[in-house]
Amino acid sequence: MAIVEVTVVPLGTGDTSLSRYVAECQKVLRNEDAIEYQLTPMGTIIEGELDVIFEVIKKLHEVPFQNGAMRVSTSIKIDDRRDKEASMGQKLASVDHKLD
Amino acid sequence: MAIVEVTVVPLGTGDTSLSRYVAECQKVLRNEDAIEYQLTPMGTIIEGELDVIFEVIKKLHEVPFQNGAMRVSTSIKIDDRRDKEASMGQKLASVDHKLD
Amino acid sequence: MAIVEVTVVPLGTGDTSLSRYVAECQKVLRNEDAIEYQLTPMGTIIEGELDVIFEVIKKLHEVPFQNGAMRVSTSIKIDDRRDKEASMGQKLASVDHKLD
Amino acid sequence: MAIVEVTVVPLGTGDTSLSRYVAECQKVLRNEDAIEYQLTPMGTIIEGELDVIFEVIKKLHEVPFQNGAMRVSTSIKIDDRRDKEASMGQKLASVDHKLD
Repeated sequence: MAIVEVTVVPLGTGDTSLSRYVAECQKVLRNEDAIEYQLTPMGTIIEGELDVIFEVIKKLHEVPFQNGAMRVSTSIKIDDRRDKEASMGQKLASVDHKLD
Repeated sequence: MAIVEVTVVPLGTGDTSLSRYVAECQKVLRNEDAIEYQLTPMGTIIEGELDVIFEVIKKLHEVPFQNGAMRVSTSIKIDDRRDKEASMGQKLASVDHKLD
Repeated sequence: MAIVEVTVVPLGTGDTSLSRYVAECQKVLRNEDAIEYQLTPMGTIIEGELDVIFEVIKKLHEVPFQNGAMRVSTSIKIDDRRDKEASMGQKLASVDHKLD
Repeated sequence: MAIVEVTVVPLGTGDTSLSRYVAECQKVLRNEDAIEYQLTPMGTIIEGELDVIFEVIKKLHEVPFQNGAMRVSTSIKIDDRRDKEASMGQKLASVDHKLD
């Protein structure tokens, strides 16, 4: 299980608002049963098997092209830990625990 | 007002767990009254004046050094929009609105 | 053709030097005939078909694990332009041309 | 001394080509005597004192706004090592040495 943040941004679209592209990406994510995900103000964080996540990211990367964009910048950050089971919730809980 | 994601990671510490460094960063953020922030499983998102945020990030970048690290990798992503007021909440609401 | 920057970093290895992991990644890249790549002081930039690049990145992401790391942070930035042919050399030349 | 990669991208400009913005950023960098820098196909890598670099990055982040953009996405990655002197050249040489 890996935790991956992805941000997909169209370039040169002539509109500073990107929320419609983000919304289309969320629709893709809703249909992916093998992952957990959450939208943040700066991207989407996905939890699941890394190979599955790569396939999902390929789909997300195509979304702006399918909606008229001609250039897309996609940023991905993978956090892959193999000495213990990690999850989005566990990572936050581990920090919280140290703040008590 | 800008929205900025920051991730501060010590390298070469000999421990795969990083939560204690993240917790120390959160303690720094608690004392910063001029910003809003939220912790995600992959970083911290900060909202505020860009100059203020840069000063906060400089402090966060020092935290692992103050806790024994000798090398720190800090990633920063700035989203700065000047045609309309943007906030973390407004960005999420704008996507939600398009998903209804 | 896409241009992709990738940085693969092991966490918690107990050694601030990462060059041996970078060198092992370069050995993987040497055997990949379908891509062009160049090492920079901050990562590796790869040019090629996006599907091919994703397969290469999966291999690079495994390199630190194969060399003893238990946690790996991999950052990827894709620049994919479909209105004209783009390459690493063309991007630099286009900037140079505007600086003359 | 830190090594920092920065990428400044205008959003919503209506033109997929960004080289004119990159060229304007390079003009800013030419006037900065306290840093070393090099342009790559995916960003600019800067070497120098971290406080100086932050001031330079603030200037670079303003460049697209000064050229008409209303939204700018700036990505920054800091590699700050304090156990030994690091430089862009030394990092590449260290990898090369292990590939011989």
